[in-house]
Amino acid sequence: MAERPTGHQVPIGDEGGVASSARPGGGTPPEPSHAERCRTLVASESRGALSTLAADPQGYPYGSVASYGLDDRGNPLFFVSLMAEHTQNAMRDPRASLLVTEPVPDGADPLASGRATLLGLLSPVAEDDRITARDRYLEANPTSAYYIDFGDFVFYLLDVRRIRYVGGYGRMSWVDAAAYAEAEPDPLAAAAAGIIEHMNADHAEAQVLFCRHLAERPDTTGASMSGVDRYGFEMIAVSPAGRAAVRLGFPEECTTSEQVRQAVVAMVSDARDIAATAPR
Amino acid sequence: MAERPTGHQVPIGDEGGVASSARPGGGTPPEPSHAERCRTLVASESRGALSTLAADPQGYPYGSVASYGLDDRGNPLFFVSLMAEHTQNAMRDPRASLLVTEPVPDGADPLASGRATLLGLLSPVAEDDRITARDRYLEANPTSAYYIDFGDFVFYLLDVRRIRYVGGYGRMSWVDAAAYAEAEPDPLAAAAAGIIEHMNADHAEAQVLFCRHLAERPDTTGASMSGVDRYGFEMIAVSPAGRAAVRLGFPEECTTSEQVRQAVVAMVSDARDIAATAPR
Repeated sequence: MAERPTGHQVPIGDEGGVASSARPGGGTPPEPSHAERCRTLVASESRGALSTLAADPQGYPYGSVASYGLDDRGNPLFFVSLMAEHTQNAMRDPRASLLVTEPVPDGADPLASGRATLLGLLSPVAEDDRITARDRYLEANPTSAYYIDFGDFVFYLLDVRRIRYVGGYGRMSWVDAAAYAEAEPDPLAAAAAGIIEHMNADHAEAQVLFCRHLAERPDTTGASMSGVDRYGFEMIAVSPAGRAAVRLGFPEECTTSEQVRQAVVAMVSDARDIAATAPR
Repeated sequence: MAERPTGHQVPIGDEGGVASSARPGGGTPPEPSHAERCRTLVASESRGALSTLAADPQGYPYGSVASYGLDDRGNPLFFVSLMAEHTQNAMRDPRASLLVTEPVPDGADPLASGRATLLGLLSPVAEDDRITARDRYLEANPTSAYYIDFGDFVFYLLDVRRIRYVGGYGRMSWVDAAAYAEAEPDPLAAAAAGIIEHMNADHAEAQVLFCRHLAERPDTTGASMSGVDRYGFEMIAVSPAGRAAVRLGFPEECTTSEQVRQAVVAMVSDARDIAATAPR
């Protein structure tokens, strides 16, 4: 049997903020680093706000909409018109950043969602790398196929040097550019929404068991999954005392939905064993 | 009877672009200026990408998420934490821009949607203007009420000096800052989605009549409304030759849904009169 997962409880204040607090006497469950969270977020989207420096005497920072693909190290690739302001700006001054934002659910506080700002230098993609850049860009932006061979468009790469990550209230840091380049987007990112929907539709009781017996919240009366990644998942646990965010680690890293299913089955069995032997 | 509305046909190419072409022999129907389109777009949203200049030695342009309200002249008002990067940046260098983007329908080409970049200078709101700024900000961001009186947050105003407007492919310009400040957001903006839905659900035949008899497209077989503003509306007209965008002006400016309803009734009557007298 795999090692018992450890719980991590995060109180949810009225302000929607989260403050980390490890379980007394327990270990902190593994979770993605900010570098991994950034790679995952940037890989999950294909459009952001590109900031360049306006080629006017005032030199205002200039925000524009930009679609992007990614190279192997997570550097954004743009396909831009030579006529566009941001291209004209980049030709004069390579300094730029790309802001990528998680989708904000309807009615939710936009400042509680994740976003990453990748700062670096823009340069035209070298002729030798053009085919690869084109493939990467098209993969992320299939609707661009009709103009991908237009003559007055060029590929630009943003060589990322600094990264600011904000995962919501109280979860923010500067992320090392090398750590970002080497991090892997979470392999569960595309499946996460489906897993969460399934767990909340069909396995609410299992989640209550998890909170009661694996996360030492015996007074839990309801629970729902709010996030899942290769290392574990987060739930909102409801009790007479209020709501709390609870993180549990998987017994082993999961890279597919099937592995998540197996992990959840093992964790239910674990939780039932503990419930059966617990003092009344 | 009001003067007959004039038609304006815009062919829709495969590339999704639009090229303006006035009706031969007819006037160009009135439409919002780019200054008005910008004011409407910026007033319809409450969140954008704020670009500031990073306070690091490299001086990268730095994009961040920012919620905003608007003052009387359409200058964005921000409520920012003193700890936030963009606030620190603005305290060192006031140059900034705010990018505001129209929502992109699922599956649509993001570069076909409208966006505006407001460039200017950030400064803290003076104490005398704080109450007004607070009211304006809260009106646009009701979910901020719980932290609106936090001590480590301050109001900033972006004094808009230059504006870049992109309404989609081929519709773009630099907009005069004074024209923007004096323009009015379209009074139909909030009602537009409902009007379009109603017209397309219940009045598809009327729209075919409009295209055939008011816009000189006698071969129209289907039509649907794609946009409406105080000066008129746009339809996609379908014929054996393909699809085309058609603009019609209202007989008189409409500032309420009820006035639109009356205008449409008058235009149906007009179109039927023309149909009845047309040579077979």
